[in-house]
Amino acid sequence: MPKLQAVLETALYVDDLARAKTFYETVLELRVLRADSRFCAFDVNGRNVLLLFKRGGSAKAMPMPGGVIPPHDGAGPLHMAFAISAQDLSAWEAALAKYGIAIESRVTWPRGGTSLYFRDPDGHAIELATPGLWEIY
Amino acid sequence: MPKLQAVLETALYVDDLARAKTFYETVLELRVLRADSRFCAFDVNGRNVLLLFKRGGSAKAMPMPGGVIPPHDGAGPLHMAFAISAQDLSAWEAALAKYGIAIESRVTWPRGGTSLYFRDPDGHAIELATPGLWEIY
Repeated sequence: MPKLQAVLETALYVDDLARAKTFYETVLELRVLRADSRFCAFDVNGRNVLLLFKRGGSAKAMPMPGGVIPPHDGAGPLHMAFAISAQDLSAWEAALAKYGIAIESRVTWPRGGTSLYFRDPDGHAIELATPGLWEIY
Repeated sequence: MPKLQAVLETALYVDDLARAKTFYETVLELRVLRADSRFCAFDVNGRNVLLLFKRGGSAKAMPMPGGVIPPHDGAGPLHMAFAISAQDLSAWEAALAKYGIAIESRVTWPRGGTSLYFRDPDGHAIELATPGLWEIY
């Protein structure tokens, strides 16, 4: 059987794409790989791609030169988590404070990891997690 | 500045958790890390965690021994992508066919990669992508 190698793309759906793009570029310091009026793709440390889609902007099939991207869309305050190193935890707390981003919650896990939770401009529940959360992390 | 290391958790919201769990375990052969009546967590090749949440089941803040998990929830046919190796592309096509999963679309990208798109039982637009899609992949 073939095996999935990794999660390549994780998507969030946003009301104001420019606002969200600024947030992820500025507060989380992600580099833009590609952006237009419909979506924005960020490089997460060369390992994953975070996609922001303008809500409703991908709800119809999208013909491309190489094929058709099927429709998708999303609502609600979604959840996703980024991995951070344990030694960066206080630096991340300071960075969030610098931008006036409230830490909604802090969780310590039985394996020793710590998670910080905050909201992006669309209310998505974003987590920064140090190792010691899952069996594999 | 601290740096995000990777995307750790990607979440989908599903109507029937048992049905979705079976799909990801059986068709995509993901290993369950943890599961209860509210959610299911899968190991993606030791690198990422895919979370399935029963729709509405995490819409209230959840007290845990180590802190409170903030509320989140989602609707709509979301999108996510898994990385696969190029040599496994035809094996994945065969695996999807074996389980009667229709390939909704196939896209070839300018950098040489190929994506297969199909729907999970909740209609999420799932992509399997070979290298040659993004600058970093």
